[in-house]
Amino acid sequence: MPPFPSSLHMFHPSLNHYLKPNFFSLIYFSISAPKFPLSSQLIAFNPRTLSSVATALSPSENGSGGGGERSAALAGPPVLENSVQKIDVNPPKGTRDFPPEEMRLRSWLFHNFREVSRLFGFEEVDYPVLESEALFIRKAGEEIKDQLYCFEDRGNRRVALRPELTPSLARLVIQKGKSLSLPLKWFAIGQCWRYERMTRGRRREHYQWNMDIIGVPEVTAEAELISSIVTFFKQIGISASDVGFKVNSRKVLQEILRSYSLSENLFAKVCVIIDKIEKIPIDEIKKELNSVGMPQEGVDKLLEVLSIKSLSELEEILGGAGEAIADLKQLFSLAEKFGYSEWIQFDASVVRGLAYYTGIVFEGFDRAGKLRAICGGGRYDRLLSTFGGDDLPACGFGFGDAVIIELLKEKGILPELIPQVENIVCALDHDLQGAAATVATMLREKGQSVDLVLESKPLKWVFKRAARINAQRLILVGNTEWKKGMVSVKILSSGEQSEIKIDELE
Amino acid sequence: MPPFPSSLHMFHPSLNHYLKPNFFSLIYFSISAPKFPLSSQLIAFNPRTLSSVATALSPSENGSGGGGERSAALAGPPVLENSVQKIDVNPPKGTRDFPPEEMRLRSWLFHNFREVSRLFGFEEVDYPVLESEALFIRKAGEEIKDQLYCFEDRGNRRVALRPELTPSLARLVIQKGKSLSLPLKWFAIGQCWRYERMTRGRRREHYQWNMDIIGVPEVTAEAELISSIVTFFKQIGISASDVGFKVNSRKVLQEILRSYSLSENLFAKVCVIIDKIEKIPIDEIKKELNSVGMPQEGVDKLLEVLSIKSLSELEEILGGAGEAIADLKQLFSLAEKFGYSEWIQFDASVVRGLAYYTGIVFEGFDRAGKLRAICGGGRYDRLLSTFGGDDLPACGFGFGDAVIIELLKEKGILPELIPQVENIVCALDHDLQGAAATVATMLREKGQSVDLVLESKPLKWVFKRAARINAQRLILVGNTEWKKGMVSVKILSSGEQSEIKIDELE
Repeated sequence: MPPFPSSLHMFHPSLNHYLKPNFFSLIYFSISAPKFPLSSQLIAFNPRTLSSVATALSPSENGSGGGGERSAALAGPPVLENSVQKIDVNPPKGTRDFPPEEMRLRSWLFHNFREVSRLFGFEEVDYPVLESEALFIRKAGEEIKDQLYCFEDRGNRRVALRPELTPSLARLVIQKGKSLSLPLKWFAIGQCWRYERMTRGRRREHYQWNMDIIGVPEVTAEAELISSIVTFFKQIGISASDVGFKVNSRKVLQEILRSYSLSENLFAKVCVIIDKIEKIPIDEIKKELNSVGMPQEGVDKLLEVLSIKSLSELEEILGGAGEAIADLKQLFSLAEKFGYSEWIQFDASVVRGLAYYTGIVFEGFDRAGKLRAICGGGRYDRLLSTFGGDDLPACGFGFGDAVIIELLKEKGILPELIPQVENIVCALDHDLQGAAATVATMLREKGQSVDLVLESKPLKWVFKRAARINAQRLILVGNTEWKKGMVSVKILSSGEQSEIKIDELE
Repeated sequence: MPPFPSSLHMFHPSLNHYLKPNFFSLIYFSISAPKFPLSSQLIAFNPRTLSSVATALSPSENGSGGGGERSAALAGPPVLENSVQKIDVNPPKGTRDFPPEEMRLRSWLFHNFREVSRLFGFEEVDYPVLESEALFIRKAGEEIKDQLYCFEDRGNRRVALRPELTPSLARLVIQKGKSLSLPLKWFAIGQCWRYERMTRGRRREHYQWNMDIIGVPEVTAEAELISSIVTFFKQIGISASDVGFKVNSRKVLQEILRSYSLSENLFAKVCVIIDKIEKIPIDEIKKELNSVGMPQEGVDKLLEVLSIKSLSELEEILGGAGEAIADLKQLFSLAEKFGYSEWIQFDASVVRGLAYYTGIVFEGFDRAGKLRAICGGGRYDRLLSTFGGDDLPACGFGFGDAVIIELLKEKGILPELIPQVENIVCALDHDLQGAAATVATMLREKGQSVDLVLESKPLKWVFKRAARINAQRLILVGNTEWKKGMVSVKILSSGEQSEIKIDELE
């Protein structure tokens, strides 16, 4: 594919590795967990050959050494305001800090979200984490409304930390109006918030990867979205035996409501009630369905349909003429062409908890049955008009950062990510710190990462630090060599040592 | 540098280009703005050769075409809850949406922040955007305190959207305590918030790149931090004739306070007052200094010293024995060794507006004098104890996303970033949409990005879309070829067209 083939390959090798061995495999380390290339963000896998070193240098053990050698040379800094306060050193309830080890995992996950989105030709977008509360208030009684992290700001406006990204997307699409050329294929990775009693270890914030397609009424859009999640799973080492997708269409419910001549206004409310089916007792569900106006016969029929797990059985009940069956059949046929039919199954009980879905809905689940839903989405063709805009066909999914990490842990394939720096540069004499700075600058100008030792430290300390940060090369700036315009270079993996002219350092 | 040289180069070429031509230059487009490699995030520069096409396809112009062809085949979706609300389609006051064109710029900026941080061996961290309000309340009367975006949450806790990242860093460092091995070299890119009347077009949120070094008492740390900002400026095409750094030490003020036997408790308050010197009249400054307890003679002396712009003049007044002069001399000497002396100058009037700085402070400024400070930072050796922790030597800087974008605009070197997809795949017949999906999957498995046309569209529409997304190759799936196991491939830059066996597609 001239003229861009090899050069472009360089920048997106991450999907290649599990499908096609290529020259990038040179830099994959041999580990049992799924393999990933070195990224540009200080992320590297713990090579098996170094794992003993890395274990010996876990932060806690190494800390005592490094910490013990903290310089005591504090040159009498000025005294600040006498306002010592004992603060709570934990992050606020339900939130997280991301120290380097957690951040590496988050960056790795986001990198994979972005890589898959790129493969599918999606463009990245984002919206304010703080939105007007009105954007999230819907009348269908979803859980999300009760858990809104909302408050009044100093200007007496009702605002909320976003619980999800889709309403903001809808707002932006309405705002841009005719200037957008359809279809839009957008993705976002954003932090979302909910306020709830902190039971069951659920946090108040998480990150969510969303992909949305606006402007395509055909089921090809839903098929494409599921294909991208499957691609993501494969990329991080998850197979069809680990997870699957339950697929349904809300049009099934709609057709049942119609057959009982029930108002379509009930539709969203009924969906939200049914979504709770695994969380509250069935009698409660029945009561709630009665209370929104469903007659007992309709409730019974509904509950019968919900237990159906095969499309042919559904067709027997609904007949083959409706849109529900047609959409679902098309989706299953496309899944074969996309190559992921083994990942999906029909399940009439899946309706998703958000009020705005209108057609196909799907949910990624852990086949071992230990975890909550991993991701979910569907078609929401009527959302824009509920905000006063013109409707556009739309579908999308949300994928959280929490459950997938739990799943990777369960499967024992959570990647081990360790820091990595190419060079550690150290002056052997206090007077040579400037010289070491010059060496560091030269290397950085050549694109090499450098940890510059900023104080006079004993060599033992320097070697310990080099091991902790997984440096590949130690460059010592000593007096004798420096006078000759040279430095001493030690390759840390092999122990190989040499003197190199500074302008020949590569 | 065996064994990693060429492979590692592949993942961090972005600094190389302005220093050392290498094989990566193959994929740089020739443009007048600074050149950058294709990233893995759908970002590419507008090549000069294509600029006419790109201009002709700006979103607004193209939108009418694409929008006009929206399919009307909405298959009667169900009616949702009758709860139409006319929402405000703008993001909340003072916040921003990031549609693709804005997001590309943000991603480009963050990519450069990360690249530079990587070159300097820093690890990425993050903290909650929502912190306890107590973390930000200090008694020195900084502007930041008055502008805190704070509120009471539903559990009656006082919380705030973080106005800056340093207090969270301090909190995490205290929390981790002895388990950390010093020095820490951490960076973060986080959204920060302030609440203020929306005058002068200032927004209520911005992103800030922070780099901090914890555990190094020597001025080498400050010198290293300024070096990383200089590296960043160079990387995005900004030179020493565009921006500079004003450098000072708060120890200068401290020595003056001491010479008047004034309490060191005044120190932070005096610094915060002096920082306002360019914003409020000098008489106001004098009054405020008097009101915190400085005698008139001290105020006069202070104002005299603040106007000093040379280190030798300062030495005449303070004498050469103090720490202030020693630190500053060391910094200027190191700046030479790091190779950025032309970027920095002494300026006694710079003290920075945050209460916690204790030593060297610095501020990046636009030499044309049109813009606010671009970035700033300094040493804050006593911050941890104000939170009840053990002090550690520390310094860092904050660099916002707003002023630098303004500066790039001013200089006419804002990069033009356009979307880019390698392939656009389209079925020529509705029945072949599944076949097109198969082709898309094959290409994606090979790491190629694919925009799959999800509906039956006329060829004219497909070519327009291909141009808009800057696709390199158009792959048409037609009946005759498909029966032979082939597709039609058109290289869009050259117009070259051929039939290729699908399993030979690369």
